[in-house]
Amino acid sequence: MKVAVVGATGLVGTKMLQVLAERNFPVTEIIPVASERSVGKEVEFRGKKYKVVSMADGIAAKPAVAIFSAGGSTSLEWAPKFAEAGITVVDNSSAWRMDPSKPLIVPEINADILTPADKIIANPNCSTIQMVVALNPLHKKYGIKRVIVSTYQSVTGTGKKAVDQLMGERAKAERGSDAEYPMAYKYPIDLNVIPQIDVFLDNGYTKEEMKMVNEPRRSCVMIPSVSPLLPCGSP
Amino acid sequence: MKVAVVGATGLVGTKMLQVLAERNFPVTEIIPVASERSVGKEVEFRGKKYKVVSMADGIAAKPAVAIFSAGGSTSLEWAPKFAEAGITVVDNSSAWRMDPSKPLIVPEINADILTPADKIIANPNCSTIQMVVALNPLHKKYGIKRVIVSTYQSVTGTGKKAVDQLMGERAKAERGSDAEYPMAYKYPIDLNVIPQIDVFLDNGYTKEEMKMVNEPRRSCVMIPSVSPLLPCGSP
Repeated sequence: MKVAVVGATGLVGTKMLQVLAERNFPVTEIIPVASERSVGKEVEFRGKKYKVVSMADGIAAKPAVAIFSAGGSTSLEWAPKFAEAGITVVDNSSAWRMDPSKPLIVPEINADILTPADKIIANPNCSTIQMVVALNPLHKKYGIKRVIVSTYQSVTGTGKKAVDQLMGERAKAERGSDAEYPMAYKYPIDLNVIPQIDVFLDNGYTKEEMKMVNEPRRSCVMIPSVSPLLPCGSP
Repeated sequence: MKVAVVGATGLVGTKMLQVLAERNFPVTEIIPVASERSVGKEVEFRGKKYKVVSMADGIAAKPAVAIFSAGGSTSLEWAPKFAEAGITVVDNSSAWRMDPSKPLIVPEINADILTPADKIIANPNCSTIQMVVALNPLHKKYGIKRVIVSTYQSVTGTGKKAVDQLMGERAKAERGSDAEYPMAYKYPIDLNVIPQIDVFLDNGYTKEEMKMVNEPRRSCVMIPSVSPLLPCGSP
């Protein structure tokens, strides 16, 4: 199977390449794709180096599947173009998750609703995926009415900038390094915990919190809660 | 007021001395007390150095109040001896918290039950204290039936050994330090979170979890739960 990884130079894209290799996914050809700024860089797959290509060249290479982890806005722009070329897009961003015309899939739960016509397939955010895998059999047997969730999320979940902040702060504290680092959070993160994930919305919850409320329903676990119920597992 | 701090060389004892100074507590004389092994060491209070004295010398100095933070077994042995000498003991360990003959006090909630006869006064563990200060007015107004708690606790809460492990691991990772450090946890703690606090009990909960179940009741917030109800705010 010809597989493109879109966002191949990012934290998640790099890990996707690793996992495809580790799990012996039947990749006959790998096509690392990224934004213009990363074109020409090299990534590794099964011990071999591959040149990163542009979005347009990724489509032209005609992979069977393109795994997207390139952020919501990139996905909104490019996933439809890949799909139009007959490429099945599996998208890791939040771009399509709440779109009723796109299936939101956790394979262990609702892969059976997929049809060959589904060319853009979304997956829920990471916390939702692991939660619904545990909740789904409980829900089927007992009918879940309410779920109370506390998550303990890693700095890597915020992305490379956050890891750079953390490691920059550590290097400064431990070695007196004066190398500059970006501020991904408003506060120091080294030896710290920040009781907020993502930005606050008008309803007083954060974006990440609302993902945990809304996305489980579309993955076929129905939980009444603060916001109106959504159709379970479209299409 | 003549004040003894028992366990004056520990992490918490050091902080107690700092807070007594910061809050301008009316200390006329400070008596730092610790185990034999620390006798003769010096601690600082309001910019002056004080020699640490033994338990027996601490009693002989006749403080009005002895603030204990020296661990449960030290407290079980020594708090009664201080009390017999007419010294009021405020104990920060878990030694007396569930003893129905000793009041468990959070000043904002139930200081009014104290009498001059109370010579050993316990306080709940740190997570309970801050929780019941918030719960108490809610409970009075609405009657709390159930509380679901997630705590996110710092390495310092485990004590000096744990901090030494953390900083030892960091120094190794950041500077290649080969200085030895103790293992306060079974697992690395640097860049990690451990989903267990204290040891597991026969009922499947940890000791710390059961403190959060039992201690709030003795601080006058009644919450039915897994274990039998205990009398609220003795004596």
